Amino acid sequence: MKLATYKDGSRDGQLVVVSRDLATAHYATGIAARLQQALDDWGFAAPQLQDLYESLNGGKARHAFPFEPRRCMAPLPRAYQWADGSAYINHVELVRRARNAEVPESFYTDPLMYQGGSDDFLGPCDDVVVPKEDYGIDFEAEVAVITGDVPMQATPDQALDGIRLLLLANDVSLRNLIPPELAKGFGFFQSKPATAFSPVAVTPDELGDAWQGGRLHLTLQSTWNGRRVGMCEAGPEMTFHFGQLIAHICKTRNVRAGSIVGSGTVSNKGVEKDGRTDWPKGYSCIAEKRAIETIQDGKPSTGFMRFGDTIRIEMKGKDGQSIFGAIEQKIAQPG
Amino acid sequence: MKLATYKDGSRDGQLVVVSRDLATAHYATGIAARLQQALDDWGFAAPQLQDLYESLNGGKARHAFPFEPRRCMAPLPRAYQWADGSAYINHVELVRRARNAEVPESFYTDPLMYQGGSDDFLGPCDDVVVPKEDYGIDFEAEVAVITGDVPMQATPDQALDGIRLLLLANDVSLRNLIPPELAKGFGFFQSKPATAFSPVAVTPDELGDAWQGGRLHLTLQSTWNGRRVGMCEAGPEMTFHFGQLIAHICKTRNVRAGSIVGSGTVSNKGVEKDGRTDWPKGYSCIAEKRAIETIQDGKPSTGFMRFGDTIRIEMKGKDGQSIFGAIEQKIAQPG
Repeated sequence: MKLATYKDGSRDGQLVVVSRDLATAHYATGIAARLQQALDDWGFAAPQLQDLYESLNGGKARHAFPFEPRRCMAPLPRAYQWADGSAYINHVELVRRARNAEVPESFYTDPLMYQGGSDDFLGPCDDVVVPKEDYGIDFEAEVAVITGDVPMQATPDQALDGIRLLLLANDVSLRNLIPPELAKGFGFFQSKPATAFSPVAVTPDELGDAWQGGRLHLTLQSTWNGRRVGMCEAGPEMTFHFGQLIAHICKTRNVRAGSIVGSGTVSNKGVEKDGRTDWPKGYSCIAEKRAIETIQDGKPSTGFMRFGDTIRIEMKGKDGQSIFGAIEQKIAQPG
Repeated sequence: MKLATYKDGSRDGQLVVVSRDLATAHYATGIAARLQQALDDWGFAAPQLQDLYESLNGGKARHAFPFEPRRCMAPLPRAYQWADGSAYINHVELVRRARNAEVPESFYTDPLMYQGGSDDFLGPCDDVVVPKEDYGIDFEAEVAVITGDVPMQATPDQALDGIRLLLLANDVSLRNLIPPELAKGFGFFQSKPATAFSPVAVTPDELGDAWQGGRLHLTLQSTWNGRRVGMCEAGPEMTFHFGQLIAHICKTRNVRAGSIVGSGTVSNKGVEKDGRTDWPKGYSCIAEKRAIETIQDGKPSTGFMRFGDTIRIEMKGKDGQSIFGAIEQKIAQPG
């Protein structure tokens, strides 16, 4: 099934069930008012939401209305956890290669993750408000999952069973704030402003064969200022699958219902052509494009985002239909 | 006023108002069922909670009952943000001096903070469950605040106005997991298991003169296995006050109601005596004691915590009464 959260002036919005084709929606009132509430008691809420979803798909839901992504908050407008991985090691390799740094051997066996802020997410069509353009504004197109309860020391397989929903994320990054911040040794903070999520979160069964072994085998499309810049394969090159990422968190603590876990920038390896490496699938963040340019030409030529720039992030199924709806944001200054 | 959350089998527990002397309590049912709910609508809920608090203190609340800290969850059993500072630069200086590392000049003007997990906090008397003793189990006694909404780019003074409640924290750390984790560059993750909080959170007015300029001028007591190891002054040596810590987060994002912001390990400078530096006020985490031993004797002699060890963290007012109740935890293995 597909779930979304409609803006209603409250902090958590209103849970709606959305039809498979994203054409219609129906309030889930009476089952669960908010998505967190459904996740807190998934065994009870999910079957009822599924029934409503089937009625909606069959055109039989009594109070259906046209679904409008612009009225959406993030599916979880605030969450108790946002833990983001860097699960495509190719992304790490590119960025490090551009600055002549080695990738430590352990990075191939031990996932890289950071704890992000989760108190104030952006809806799919909300502006990305950044105080200064020269912070180096970048998008990061990612796949993410929302979990149920997963206990401390869960294995990757057990963790996979704890995945309730999948969605897309734009993990906005302020690139020029990252080097001084990471140099302090405590990880990201000011360099990671509010993250945005796709209009719709979907249960794994919606993805059919494309969801395999904790990886989503579909193409993540990124369109910057109307120009398609990324058509990246999210499946085969994901070094650590979502079960492994969740199990990484579970090494020393429980993961509780409503935790969101991200894949990190989706990234594909380059291909050799006429003695030069090329990246025909493009990129899911500008930092990677700049790393590629540095490797190819000695220096980056693509600038970061400017006020007024737009970013669209979307993923289509094998039938060509949008699965999660599109993240469509504009970069804006405060006020 | 003083607020706590009683265990009731649910994820968020039941909000209770606690008398100033911590002797009695009263359910806040009818005003707000959960603390997050009160924080979401503080202007509406706070005056009603205050009325109940005054009735309780006057012995006039109709359904008061004896307050039992063992029945408490963390005041916020889960939160949308847990951002922990390292606001006592003396702590950073000690730890770095022990390994012959410099403190960068910027650390005196730019707060060090990390984003912690906030989906699964421990109550004040809950066991600290750690899979392995050799992870290097340590307590960290801290002061923390819970905020209302503070907008992006708020100044430190504006951020101070956003503080709703104060409480104590035990930011449990797994010391032997820290060096390899920080070496990866993305900050703490597995080295920071669930944090515990004091039974009670209090509004700033409860602290009188002791709450000044965003610092709490009282003594934080840490008692390890029944032995008083820390009597650290939390006020004068706090390099960055809570308004500065919150404003640090607000540089690039909004801070939303119910965010918890921690001070980091409370730490006091040593005093010179007979040509040797001594730390008569003790320590608020074992890592600091080990750093002191290394500086004094060339190597640490105090080991980390073992299964079965206990830690008690408490702060008393000028009248000798416990303000927040005590964190009293035991270290335990899973199962």
